[in-house]
Amino acid sequence: MNNNKRSYVSTVPKANPLRVGFIGLSAYKGWAIKSHYPAILQLPSQFQVTALLNLDIETSLATIKKLKLTKATAFSDVSSFASYDNVDMVVISVNVPELFTIVMELLENSKANPNLKYIYSEWSLGKNLKEAEAIHKAAKERGVQTIISLQGRKSPYVVRAKELVSEGCIGDINSIEIAANGGWYGYERPIKSPKYLYDAASGVSLLSIAFGHTIDILQYITASYFSEINAMIFNNIPYQVLLDEHGKKTGEKAEKTAPDHLLFQGSLSHGNVPVSCSFKGGTPVKKFSKNLVIDIHGTKGDLKLEGDAGFAEMSNLVLYFCGLKKEGSMNVSTGSSGAETMEVYHLRNYNSVVGNILRIYEAIADFHFRTNPRTKLPPKLERQGFLFEGFPTFKDALIVHQLIQRVIESSQQKTTLPTSFEAV
Amino acid sequence: MNNNKRSYVSTVPKANPLRVGFIGLSAYKGWAIKSHYPAILQLPSQFQVTALLNLDIETSLATIKKLKLTKATAFSDVSSFASYDNVDMVVISVNVPELFTIVMELLENSKANPNLKYIYSEWSLGKNLKEAEAIHKAAKERGVQTIISLQGRKSPYVVRAKELVSEGCIGDINSIEIAANGGWYGYERPIKSPKYLYDAASGVSLLSIAFGHTIDILQYITASYFSEINAMIFNNIPYQVLLDEHGKKTGEKAEKTAPDHLLFQGSLSHGNVPVSCSFKGGTPVKKFSKNLVIDIHGTKGDLKLEGDAGFAEMSNLVLYFCGLKKEGSMNVSTGSSGAETMEVYHLRNYNSVVGNILRIYEAIADFHFRTNPRTKLPPKLERQGFLFEGFPTFKDALIVHQLIQRVIESSQQKTTLPTSFEAV
Repeated sequence: MNNNKRSYVSTVPKANPLRVGFIGLSAYKGWAIKSHYPAILQLPSQFQVTALLNLDIETSLATIKKLKLTKATAFSDVSSFASYDNVDMVVISVNVPELFTIVMELLENSKANPNLKYIYSEWSLGKNLKEAEAIHKAAKERGVQTIISLQGRKSPYVVRAKELVSEGCIGDINSIEIAANGGWYGYERPIKSPKYLYDAASGVSLLSIAFGHTIDILQYITASYFSEINAMIFNNIPYQVLLDEHGKKTGEKAEKTAPDHLLFQGSLSHGNVPVSCSFKGGTPVKKFSKNLVIDIHGTKGDLKLEGDAGFAEMSNLVLYFCGLKKEGSMNVSTGSSGAETMEVYHLRNYNSVVGNILRIYEAIADFHFRTNPRTKLPPKLERQGFLFEGFPTFKDALIVHQLIQRVIESSQQKTTLPTSFEAV
Repeated sequence: MNNNKRSYVSTVPKANPLRVGFIGLSAYKGWAIKSHYPAILQLPSQFQVTALLNLDIETSLATIKKLKLTKATAFSDVSSFASYDNVDMVVISVNVPELFTIVMELLENSKANPNLKYIYSEWSLGKNLKEAEAIHKAAKERGVQTIISLQGRKSPYVVRAKELVSEGCIGDINSIEIAANGGWYGYERPIKSPKYLYDAASGVSLLSIAFGHTIDILQYITASYFSEINAMIFNNIPYQVLLDEHGKKTGEKAEKTAPDHLLFQGSLSHGNVPVSCSFKGGTPVKKFSKNLVIDIHGTKGDLKLEGDAGFAEMSNLVLYFCGLKKEGSMNVSTGSSGAETMEVYHLRNYNSVVGNILRIYEAIADFHFRTNPRTKLPPKLERQGFLFEGFPTFKDALIVHQLIQRVIESSQQKTTLPTSFEAV
């Protein structure tokens, strides 16, 4: 298998690119200009920005001018944006605390809009399970194809790891250890850093971001959800030291309710595989381990993913593989000709912030333009699940939210809990 | 501090060495001849074997002859051995399933023996908590000084790590990850391997050996017990493939009830430190991680202990340290003169099987002969706890057994459990 090759349509010019309405694209700040926009720029035949919505219309107008988005119209509110029929796809890249209201309003006000087919939202799709469920339900009723930015699934290292697992190159997985060190939630924080990042209720936390993305990647690679989990959530740093713009201590402190450590352990339903996870908050400063390690052990070999911080979905990783490999074979584990081999996968200049999201856009284009003759995807993708093809959907997001909810319950109730998502 | 320097009495000739009665020393097989005996040989002025008891008296007589134990008498049963008054210390090195009966019989039958002062037993002091409690109680009533072979505490790497922690060289510990791969309990086993090793009830298991020793070392280094724990015990390999003496598959299988994986997580009572542990059974074959890793992170630096298998107590380790260090200072963390430094500790030719036990014998000699002018040890050492000086006792063993019992309960009851040993 080679699921890392370039997508079918990505270089084919199209007369009718998907018209993209963007909520939260500013030329001046934010995540979208660093990730979504450079990705879309690489697919000019497939995507074209036609509408823009920001907190204020001035930002949208200035962005249109600066980025030369000649086909784009600026809007001042969600309802007029939602009813604009020159849009096939809406991309929502706003701060998580604001996401719920905007998405719900968009879905409500776009009901009469005949052309809107795709909604692509940033993870985490709402602050909590309740919001994610409501959004998922509303999107389903609205009938749009959803896409969620669990973009770690598109990391070339994750895809390669998944291939090696699915081809039996490490045999049956029998244990997994994960240790990650996230960026926020440590002893210090910049005084200008938005408060919601340190508020447990905001939905942007070690649990949703570092754990959510990483565990989604793990489930994707192993093609298994969890059957049982236990978690312990720590807030050992209830007050953080504030730093000025030069990184110097201001002498002030600020409250933090967001967790700074998560211990998680459980068994994967496929193979009852023990998984041990330690997610640490704060600056990644580990000296003798990489600050992101996913260590997968099997009966025939090992896989190890390493990165510089606990953000697997946007880090350039290194994949180490030792195991059996036979070119062209779909199932090495049963063949006797597989010889043990050792490989390292690393693209030194891979821009993972843009690259993983670019590959989501490629997957959307592949799905929409249907140029892949081998595609087995249905006309509507309810969830990607563990498919190589396609893209993660709101349903996939919901499954991660359900796991996070179980993590919170397990920690609060001090219990080991069953988790079953197969029947979701 | 330098707690790794040679003990005070180890080279001082003594007119009256401690007279050692040995249960389970055979010149031909077993653990004692590889570990205890070479250790005692290095301390001829402090220890002298005067009595020997094995399953049969022929083994003892042959051992006396072969090892030239000219002062030793062979015994044929525990009761006559126990009443032999030419013994100051009894060392018990037998298989764990037999340990309880022998120790209890020894304590019972030695009541009239005026000279017996020390009983040194192999870990795990009984098959389970119940046996360990009974032995501890009987030894206390008998009034002997107990010593337990939790010899990992005497590993020079463990002692050095403990020093660095206690001197504040890595600041406050804020997270710990442990991953270990034990030797037994995997997919295969030698046909001649004793059955009790694979029987969950035998008391020799991934829990008691790999986990027990390692977690005792961790608690010793951090000077903290656990306040809360969760565990999941796995037996994913209920049948093992049997191998002949050449390592070839015989085609037969044998039942295994002993666990092959333990997931453990919890918080240390001192600092509420999150600790994540994954103990894997089977041949240590990890390719991209050492098969024993203890990763300790602090606010000022890191410590990492690595070894080749999940038996920290008898492995030659490597200790990596990065943090603050000021020569001669007892508390670096509060001093401003500490500069970050990086060091690796490794004695290439350290024989850890003998060495750690030798250092227990040295500690016993130091304790008995009282030649250390700085000693703060009481006349009777109820437990070593987190002292550098002294040696682990039956009480220390009991504390580890209580933790193991909690691990079993946590896994069975699917709960996160409080653990408090301070008041034991």
